[in-house]
Amino acid sequence: MQTVIHLVSGDVTEQKTALTIAKNLLDDETGSIDDVAVVVQADGMKAIKTGQESEEQVRALLDDGVSFKACSNTLEMMDLDESDLVEGVEAVPEGAVEVTRLETEGYAYMRP
Amino acid sequence: MQTVIHLVSGDVTEQKTALTIAKNLLDDETGSIDDVAVVVQADGMKAIKTGQESEEQVRALLDDGVSFKACSNTLEMMDLDESDLVEGVEAVPEGAVEVTRLETEGYAYMRP
Amino acid sequence: MQTVIHLVSGDVTEQKTALTIAKNLLDDETGSIDDVAVVVQADGMKAIKTGQESEEQVRALLDDGVSFKACSNTLEMMDLDESDLVEGVEAVPEGAVEVTRLETEGYAYMRP
Repeated sequence: MQTVIHLVSGDVTEQKTALTIAKNLLDDETGSIDDVAVVVQADGMKAIKTGQESEEQVRALLDDGVSFKACSNTLEMMDLDESDLVEGVEAVPEGAVEVTRLETEGYAYMRP
Repeated sequence: MQTVIHLVSGDVTEQKTALTIAKNLLDDETGSIDDVAVVVQADGMKAIKTGQESEEQVRALLDDGVSFKACSNTLEMMDLDESDLVEGVEAVPEGAVEVTRLETEGYAYMRP
Repeated sequence: MQTVIHLVSGDVTEQKTALTIAKNLLDDETGSIDDVAVVVQADGMKAIKTGQESEEQVRALLDDGVSFKACSNTLEMMDLDESDLVEGVEAVPEGAVEVTRLETEGYAYMRP
């Protein structure tokens, strides 16, 4: 099974929950989760910028094989580019199109 | 591909994100999005009432072919009727049933 | 049709909306909803503890056939066990895996 997590909230508690859930999916003892993707847009972007409290957690998830996809429309609106994000995060043209594509491919969606 | 956006939050930032995402899905340059529906219930209803700051954005999305479906149970609880909403919004009996129906038909869900 | 509601927010308004939506799905006059499951994790857990304002609403939904599934990882983090929850709530190993499983089985997801 595959899961896409929509990291779209600027609320730090919700951001932490999203990252914890990504970790818990990876750690699932039944081994039923094959892939976890995190699509980041709007105020969720703050959680994957370098220099944030969440940086270590994001790095660990990337190391564990979680993919992070940052919405380029959000980056442009926030005057950011990929170099402002934790290394390993991938930019995609539009986060909502990416979420739609993953769900259409069979990924389960969640928005903590 | 088709997307249903659940506009259920009373938070103005989350409402703006929902409407911006609807626009970005429409504007997708790959042309992979065939339909965008916005199902509105609970405190999300405030975003589609006439006289709100969001009115112009809602009108523009309706003009561009986005469908807005307002939960009649919410309207009743808030003592509103369709005439209080931006023209072109359609009432449905229950928003959550409509979301379930659209997802079951293959729409990707998102809740910004 | 089947629906899984993700009760993950600590916001009391969002929790109330989630429980109201569960009730409205059950009450759907078209009879198109066959099952409603509520997966509870993170700060959503507060809504299904005994002694909360929401207790009566949760009991009524359980009586009406809604299943409530509480994330054991969250229970451990909050130093709670099943005896702290409204009777009839079932513990599952990890809420996000349960949500993924239900969506993969065809349940429509919503996160009010």
